[in-house]
Amino acid sequence: MGNTLGKLFSVTSFGESHGKCVGVVIDGCPAGLQLTVEDIQREVDRRRPRPGTFATTRYEEDRVEILSGVFDEYTTGAPICLLVYNAEAESGVYEEMKNLLRPGHADYTARIKYGGFADYRGGGRFSGRITAGFVMAGAVAKKLLIAIGVEILAHTVEIGGIRAGLKTFPEIRENVNKNHLCTGDPGAVESMLRVIARAREAGDSVGGVVEGIALNVPAGLGEPIFDTLEGEIAKALLAIPAVKGVEFGAGFQSARMFGSENNDPFVLENGRLVTVSNNAGGVLGGISSGMPIVVRVAVKPTPSIARSQDTVNIRDKQPAKLEIKGRHDTCIVPRVVPVVEAMMAIVLCDFALVAGKLPRVLVRQEER
Amino acid sequence: MGNTLGKLFSVTSFGESHGKCVGVVIDGCPAGLQLTVEDIQREVDRRRPRPGTFATTRYEEDRVEILSGVFDEYTTGAPICLLVYNAEAESGVYEEMKNLLRPGHADYTARIKYGGFADYRGGGRFSGRITAGFVMAGAVAKKLLIAIGVEILAHTVEIGGIRAGLKTFPEIRENVNKNHLCTGDPGAVESMLRVIARAREAGDSVGGVVEGIALNVPAGLGEPIFDTLEGEIAKALLAIPAVKGVEFGAGFQSARMFGSENNDPFVLENGRLVTVSNNAGGVLGGISSGMPIVVRVAVKPTPSIARSQDTVNIRDKQPAKLEIKGRHDTCIVPRVVPVVEAMMAIVLCDFALVAGKLPRVLVRQEER
Amino acid sequence: MGNTLGKLFSVTSFGESHGKCVGVVIDGCPAGLQLTVEDIQREVDRRRPRPGTFATTRYEEDRVEILSGVFDEYTTGAPICLLVYNAEAESGVYEEMKNLLRPGHADYTARIKYGGFADYRGGGRFSGRITAGFVMAGAVAKKLLIAIGVEILAHTVEIGGIRAGLKTFPEIRENVNKNHLCTGDPGAVESMLRVIARAREAGDSVGGVVEGIALNVPAGLGEPIFDTLEGEIAKALLAIPAVKGVEFGAGFQSARMFGSENNDPFVLENGRLVTVSNNAGGVLGGISSGMPIVVRVAVKPTPSIARSQDTVNIRDKQPAKLEIKGRHDTCIVPRVVPVVEAMMAIVLCDFALVAGKLPRVLVRQEER
Amino acid sequence: MGNTLGKLFSVTSFGESHGKCVGVVIDGCPAGLQLTVEDIQREVDRRRPRPGTFATTRYEEDRVEILSGVFDEYTTGAPICLLVYNAEAESGVYEEMKNLLRPGHADYTARIKYGGFADYRGGGRFSGRITAGFVMAGAVAKKLLIAIGVEILAHTVEIGGIRAGLKTFPEIRENVNKNHLCTGDPGAVESMLRVIARAREAGDSVGGVVEGIALNVPAGLGEPIFDTLEGEIAKALLAIPAVKGVEFGAGFQSARMFGSENNDPFVLENGRLVTVSNNAGGVLGGISSGMPIVVRVAVKPTPSIARSQDTVNIRDKQPAKLEIKGRHDTCIVPRVVPVVEAMMAIVLCDFALVAGKLPRVLVRQEER
Repeated sequence: MGNTLGKLFSVTSFGESHGKCVGVVIDGCPAGLQLTVEDIQREVDRRRPRPGTFATTRYEEDRVEILSGVFDEYTTGAPICLLVYNAEAESGVYEEMKNLLRPGHADYTARIKYGGFADYRGGGRFSGRITAGFVMAGAVAKKLLIAIGVEILAHTVEIGGIRAGLKTFPEIRENVNKNHLCTGDPGAVESMLRVIARAREAGDSVGGVVEGIALNVPAGLGEPIFDTLEGEIAKALLAIPAVKGVEFGAGFQSARMFGSENNDPFVLENGRLVTVSNNAGGVLGGISSGMPIVVRVAVKPTPSIARSQDTVNIRDKQPAKLEIKGRHDTCIVPRVVPVVEAMMAIVLCDFALVAGKLPRVLVRQEER
Repeated sequence: MGNTLGKLFSVTSFGESHGKCVGVVIDGCPAGLQLTVEDIQREVDRRRPRPGTFATTRYEEDRVEILSGVFDEYTTGAPICLLVYNAEAESGVYEEMKNLLRPGHADYTARIKYGGFADYRGGGRFSGRITAGFVMAGAVAKKLLIAIGVEILAHTVEIGGIRAGLKTFPEIRENVNKNHLCTGDPGAVESMLRVIARAREAGDSVGGVVEGIALNVPAGLGEPIFDTLEGEIAKALLAIPAVKGVEFGAGFQSARMFGSENNDPFVLENGRLVTVSNNAGGVLGGISSGMPIVVRVAVKPTPSIARSQDTVNIRDKQPAKLEIKGRHDTCIVPRVVPVVEAMMAIVLCDFALVAGKLPRVLVRQEER
Repeated sequence: MGNTLGKLFSVTSFGESHGKCVGVVIDGCPAGLQLTVEDIQREVDRRRPRPGTFATTRYEEDRVEILSGVFDEYTTGAPICLLVYNAEAESGVYEEMKNLLRPGHADYTARIKYGGFADYRGGGRFSGRITAGFVMAGAVAKKLLIAIGVEILAHTVEIGGIRAGLKTFPEIRENVNKNHLCTGDPGAVESMLRVIARAREAGDSVGGVVEGIALNVPAGLGEPIFDTLEGEIAKALLAIPAVKGVEFGAGFQSARMFGSENNDPFVLENGRLVTVSNNAGGVLGGISSGMPIVVRVAVKPTPSIARSQDTVNIRDKQPAKLEIKGRHDTCIVPRVVPVVEAMMAIVLCDFALVAGKLPRVLVRQEER
Repeated sequence: MGNTLGKLFSVTSFGESHGKCVGVVIDGCPAGLQLTVEDIQREVDRRRPRPGTFATTRYEEDRVEILSGVFDEYTTGAPICLLVYNAEAESGVYEEMKNLLRPGHADYTARIKYGGFADYRGGGRFSGRITAGFVMAGAVAKKLLIAIGVEILAHTVEIGGIRAGLKTFPEIRENVNKNHLCTGDPGAVESMLRVIARAREAGDSVGGVVEGIALNVPAGLGEPIFDTLEGEIAKALLAIPAVKGVEFGAGFQSARMFGSENNDPFVLENGRLVTVSNNAGGVLGGISSGMPIVVRVAVKPTPSIARSQDTVNIRDKQPAKLEIKGRHDTCIVPRVVPVVEAMMAIVLCDFALVAGKLPRVLVRQEER
């Protein structure tokens, strides 16, 4: 239960970290989207561990396979099953520590919920590896959005307390793929890498903040009162392991502003209605306003750390010490960047279909 | 679309600020819950404007009516329709300014989405008044949760930049109903009231932060990978007008911590597995751990302010000045407190039913 | 649970036979539909007991009230709450026999499911009276469908074994409202009334068959593989109390035909692709073909009969005799006719929205 | 859209007749079910073409693969992805006739709905082959139901107008797997085979009727008013290609009975409440009564026939003649039998979970 996201564009996730594969089924993708393995592979590759960032040394090739829903390079309107096989799993280390609850992980809650039957190897279903599926689905969603002119871009805005400087959207677009931390501010890279290196040496980890931006989103997306644009985006982002907070526009800062500061005044710009500022993050009343959607997520530090931690052995119910082995990222923030884009894209596609802003067939029959 | 929340315990909202009424239909409430108008009225009354807080002077009596689903004082398992009539609406002022888009409000997005047909009076469907329905549904949910030992409590932790001091749960429970700002820290009330008063004088408004806590939640609630406990709570809270951010446990602060600080070590306490700290806010892997659920929401300052604002007249597409009349809260934060409790309760009931932790019939047939 | 029907055009039902009211909330109705109480009242009136048909003598006035979602006579895009109050309920008779399980009714299953808490008066939630809500929602759906040229018409094709003669669609449209049995064949009325009268005299009841037809349905509605047009229509029709079977086009008769007889050959008619016959009932592969949708439902005889029946007293668990008093229809078939139309209309609206064949706003903003 | 069935036990279908594979993802399967490939293979094998029945000569090996959700031979609570690869597809013949709309098939409606992008080879997504996925999901559902004592059995009751004689449930169980037509009446086999053979010779096809029975279903399953047990079963069965009608218990025959005949009197049998007859088919008020669920589906004759048919060439919009080549079943009725069982099992599992009659974990943690 709970492994399907979306109403008209819906994504069902399956697979485990150390099982056979990680995959998704996308149901509701409009027919007529040109789609190749390369379109998806490109996004999946962005999620792989980056050199020089103290990332995991588990290095999966992650070759995307399209099992259904695409015919003659076009989507058919049928469900699209996509997967990557797991090849590099090393499960031995998990066997050793399977009764030691890893703090900050889902070991305990999964055990309670699934009665001890959950696949514990590599975190099983709760591994960050599951997000490879999110990114595959997001690749399809992003390509659909491009068809209606929507661009999505995420970037690292904070790592281990080091904040990136404010950059314009063109600067972010320009810079984000030029550094392995995926930040829009090249000037912050060195300090960020330093704080990660220091954590690595200490057998520790650091977190950070990722910002997602969607440009040119048509006004009118979102289905309040409950299915707000913010609510569905937040829900989708909180499905990313390690995300513990979500804010839109000025977010928590708006709680400290006066109404006169926080309100975004309306003006006409070349006949188009825009707001002077964007403290609302592009959403008013749960509905997109046409201004950029801006959302930030808090990414907690990787819970897998080499340092010794106190815990409990669940089998004999005794206190225990735990030093986590295995291959872990010291900082997963950069790898969260493409996942944030994917989740935003999935939610926006779903709302665009519901609002009739994305057609059910991309090219009309007569044109073929 | 989008006016129903929940899978097994589902709440459908209807009504407008200046229409006939505001109501909800609750579907999926277990049979056998003793339920009277008073149970619901009590919660609805907590949402009404508090004296001395510069709240709106629209003073609705808000008499709760139960239209269905309750027979001989017990829920029957059938849908429960609850409503309060609108009596005190003054729509004239809205007629005057109906073409002036109020910054920070949904006027523009609603107009785009509903093609100019939305009821604009008092914000219509986007008014905070709609949350009266949320609170009615939440009252039922809270009573159900009490049956399985779960307690929910929200409180104001920040207003206009003034933060309440840290308090224990018993202190919060003790204090929150003794002051009209609903804060657990009586020492902060005076400063908070002062900042509200100052905003009022300046024709302005202030926001703040509300924290929601759920105690004694059974471990195992939440349906990852997508329907996480955090995700569904966040979605529900973001349906409250003015909420722009949500964080769990240490939230955004965790992004600045080391893994060794942020991880909550497991220990045994009288044979029960608990964590020493609760930076996770009671949720690991999207599933409740048995520790208190802790969530905070950022409430933006009321967008309705008396000060002159720049905007656009949507009819003639010309720049315009707007001074909002009507009766408005200078600070809605205290009124959000019972709504946060309601939304948390609704989501927890839904997950408890899905997980089989809340029975479908509260008293067995044989016992009657 | 289970009281909401539909994905984008969704109807939530509430109310009981002898409670305060029967109502619905419609969520997802496009904005901009002109809608008055009269539009809905007209349909509700068609459901009331017809003179001369040995129908119930409970004669509710059934004055429709619109509680939300309509402003200045147009739908706003917000949820539409509609209800009729119960005025004529006589509950005394049910009190007497509340422990005698009425054969063919839901008394026993409701008791098991809701642990003895269900409102048993007049069948409570399981009464045919609940369909007054269906008809209200259907009235809105039918008006929406008219806006895209779809016409829906149901008629009685069989009562107590008497079959109506085959009639053309114009004949049915012409005749159906001219007789109180709502059959398209006036020649069958006398025989049908005779069989009802005979059942009435014997303290018994009869059933029949109702056919629903939808004309001018756009090709392309239906979302296979699971959410087929037939599947969703069947599900909706089986929610009508007393319906025990559903068939499309040639239906069960097709099971006895050769493929060469049953297949509907395609031909061009004035450049439009049609089929010569319509054994498929307008649906191929779960998707509308543009041919008329034709569906028939089996309506079982009213289970409430005056004749003595064997049953069990559920309180003392002893065999008992039951003679049902109260006011009952000898034959509910004619009263099912408008309900069949309503259910078909609701499902077609939902699919039309999903397929983008019904706009989310009926009149564009610029035109206002 | 529309490729997911079920609320708590949900099945998502993917794959095409001549694509790479046919598969399903099952979400919501309780943890702790022992599950091997053989459990699923057994059911899939029952769906393969039977010798001597004039079935298709496309003979797929259909080796089941479990891609996720099972660990150490037990279900984990995670989504279960199951698939069979397509090996024997011969697509050439479809290329030839791709512009000739096959009467009785989804060629035209798919073309309209998906704008010419649908995979037409072998019927693509609309092929009976897709039901291999249904049967895989059904195998899991059936094993879950066995754990709570529910048995499901379907059988052929009519082929080409030849009806099987009435048999008791033990007789059906005994006989159904002993003949390749899957009928409970061995005496009817010869006549049925004769009518199939005759159709084959004539280049034609025949249909029939399949009955599904579920024994020992706990009373209380079904979520009226809309999500009735009958409605959801009917919807699931109508997703089987070729099914055009569904009836429960006495079904359409009940429309011709008097109330006194059709009502099933309640009696006590060894202290258990049962009904003397079962015209209701085990469902009253949309809720299971504890009596056997009995449902029958009308299966239309295979639309693919060798005889020449009139149709239209969709490319040049001209009348055309069509003689369908390829490998087709003359009568698919016996192959529908395991699919009916599968669909019933899926729906019953879903309702059992919703009603709390099927636990979320099959063996408790303490017992491991």
